[in-house]
Amino acid sequence: MKVIAVNAGSSSLKFQLLQMPEEIELASGIVERIGKSDAIFQMKFNGEKHKLVLEILNHKDAADIVIKNLLDYGVIKDLKEINGVGHRIVQGGETFKDSVLVTDEVIKQISDLSDLAPLHNPANVTGILSFKEVLNEVPHVAVFDTTFHQTMEPINYLYATPYEWYENHKVRKYGFHGTSHQYVSHRAAEILNNPKAKIVVAHIGNGASLSAVKDLKSVNTSMGLTPLDGLPMGTRSGAIDPAILGYIAKKENMSLEEVLEALNKKSGYLGVSGLSNDSRDLEEAIKQGHERAKLAIDLQVKSIVNYIAQYYVELGGLDAICFTAGIGENASDFREQIVEKLAPLGVILDKEANKLRGERLISTPESKVKVFIIPTNEEVMIARDVLRVGFQA
Amino acid sequence: MKVIAVNAGSSSLKFQLLQMPEEIELASGIVERIGKSDAIFQMKFNGEKHKLVLEILNHKDAADIVIKNLLDYGVIKDLKEINGVGHRIVQGGETFKDSVLVTDEVIKQISDLSDLAPLHNPANVTGILSFKEVLNEVPHVAVFDTTFHQTMEPINYLYATPYEWYENHKVRKYGFHGTSHQYVSHRAAEILNNPKAKIVVAHIGNGASLSAVKDLKSVNTSMGLTPLDGLPMGTRSGAIDPAILGYIAKKENMSLEEVLEALNKKSGYLGVSGLSNDSRDLEEAIKQGHERAKLAIDLQVKSIVNYIAQYYVELGGLDAICFTAGIGENASDFREQIVEKLAPLGVILDKEANKLRGERLISTPESKVKVFIIPTNEEVMIARDVLRVGFQA
Repeated sequence: MKVIAVNAGSSSLKFQLLQMPEEIELASGIVERIGKSDAIFQMKFNGEKHKLVLEILNHKDAADIVIKNLLDYGVIKDLKEINGVGHRIVQGGETFKDSVLVTDEVIKQISDLSDLAPLHNPANVTGILSFKEVLNEVPHVAVFDTTFHQTMEPINYLYATPYEWYENHKVRKYGFHGTSHQYVSHRAAEILNNPKAKIVVAHIGNGASLSAVKDLKSVNTSMGLTPLDGLPMGTRSGAIDPAILGYIAKKENMSLEEVLEALNKKSGYLGVSGLSNDSRDLEEAIKQGHERAKLAIDLQVKSIVNYIAQYYVELGGLDAICFTAGIGENASDFREQIVEKLAPLGVILDKEANKLRGERLISTPESKVKVFIIPTNEEVMIARDVLRVGFQA
Repeated sequence: MKVIAVNAGSSSLKFQLLQMPEEIELASGIVERIGKSDAIFQMKFNGEKHKLVLEILNHKDAADIVIKNLLDYGVIKDLKEINGVGHRIVQGGETFKDSVLVTDEVIKQISDLSDLAPLHNPANVTGILSFKEVLNEVPHVAVFDTTFHQTMEPINYLYATPYEWYENHKVRKYGFHGTSHQYVSHRAAEILNNPKAKIVVAHIGNGASLSAVKDLKSVNTSMGLTPLDGLPMGTRSGAIDPAILGYIAKKENMSLEEVLEALNKKSGYLGVSGLSNDSRDLEEAIKQGHERAKLAIDLQVKSIVNYIAQYYVELGGLDAICFTAGIGENASDFREQIVEKLAPLGVILDKEANKLRGERLISTPESKVKVFIIPTNEEVMIARDVLRVGFQA
């Protein structure tokens, strides 16, 4: 059977068609600049890349274009070959503890959570509605970035803010990148042949978060109410002294919204280096002796080490640390910096193995904690949940 | 010789008269409700407590009252017995790397730092000016809460916010409680007979911060631009997802200032428990089964453990963990909770010793890290600096 995984943003739509349960990618692509007369459709299929520039006025048209091209390029011969649709939803709040079959009620509940994710949930709903029009006879399953972390205890999800903020407005840590943390930690437990393993997953891409996983469940994670919390990222500051917002608003005569915009879009790698939000640009600049590029990376490395230290103590030692996502999977110098700082915990890097790519062990036999690179695959995780939830008895 | 240590707040003035260099407290007290017709003067001297209610309109009058009572009660026989004055100043910014003899220029520099500490520095300056009028022939020394932490490296004092915020507005971590962290860590190094010792100081009072100290220097600390950063405290939230401020401002129709007021005054113990900012009230409520009181304490304990884990890795292991300040020195259950969670680092509490008070070792001989209670004494630290800086050749 074939399943399509959909990730709809405010003006974009990513998709991947998978052969299940074999978990084989058949085609993947993205529609960008939705709403414009020069929108872009791109698709990878059969080792080839295809690109079209055309008018795409809304997400419904984008969904149509995706299906039309899957047919035109012969990825599928008939619409009926697609047996299910999985939708990535950012914020499931406390409402959704697991992936769920999409119904009108579910769509309303996802919309109701939009206050907690104003940039994401409305776009995610648009994606659902668009694909439900095109593929209305198959099960649609909503897969949330937050559900994997719903196993956290109150001690780990509550902030020390007024309790009414939690009771009345659901201010708490939700955590994100859940499908990735789940995929990678479950894969690590499989490699270790130990479903009780104590695992840290470092998902480091342009967005970045860490999780502590035990018994295959998320115990703690670094992101919070929103993806701004936790460690410094490509353009985000991570957690800071909240008083900075008041101080800068006054000094720069900025509104609260403008300060938050700066913390979300002009901080992290970009803000500290003044150069770029792309780690590859910073690595290049560091070779040229650019001090603030080094500082930008160092600040994130430091924060990652801090979280690993916390989770080591919280879980009572660790069986494995897993690096994943764009930077985590590819930046070997970056991984080396992190693991070397973990020497006090008995973690020892295999420097040669660390230079390679793909799923592998990168710690030495003497290391007290195993270190892995495990490429993440959120689309496979979504497709698995379409099978599990969309086709259950 | 005699030295008076002064800590001036916006409507209060604490003082302690010490015999130096013997470091003996001769008298101590506080003036409260300055500016009111029913202000309160209290003093402890010779094991007795004295209290007066009277009109005290400003800090100058408060200083006069202090001196008059020291004379009236015979603590001193002549004003000339007081050889120096030490002033506790909250924010020294990057300007002050050490305590300093007060001059007109220094007073101006302290005032210039008021943007960074609007509630504290102006009051501190008022305290200096008042006592300089009363005791104008002796050296006055400014002792800052921040200078001990000025040895931090950029990697530990910079936030991952836009770099211009640091360049133009000095947005960075300063850290506070410096005199306490210095006093306690130096005492620990003395007990260990090791000036290179790696030490964590947990200063837990109504305000609370941790520091990592190596070679007698502060390497890292939990408070930041302001004392709101770091761990949850009596009424403060500590570091949180900055996006919470925007979300709550919208949900509760609050201004940024009002949200920050709530994070400073209605969070921490008070906000989570809904009961009190006093740990003793919470301990009592916990015995009655009050769940949110337990949660309030647990959230702080968790955060303290997180910082100790970080500093353990950062310093490459630890020689000692020191508890100090009101809660740190007195709350044995609280210390027990923390140390038990540190078992993965080989830290083992001596439960019997932990029930006692005063300076002592509270870890077992098998513990890989020594744990101490070390009562802090910020006034002694201030008086020492009056001698060192006010009477140098």
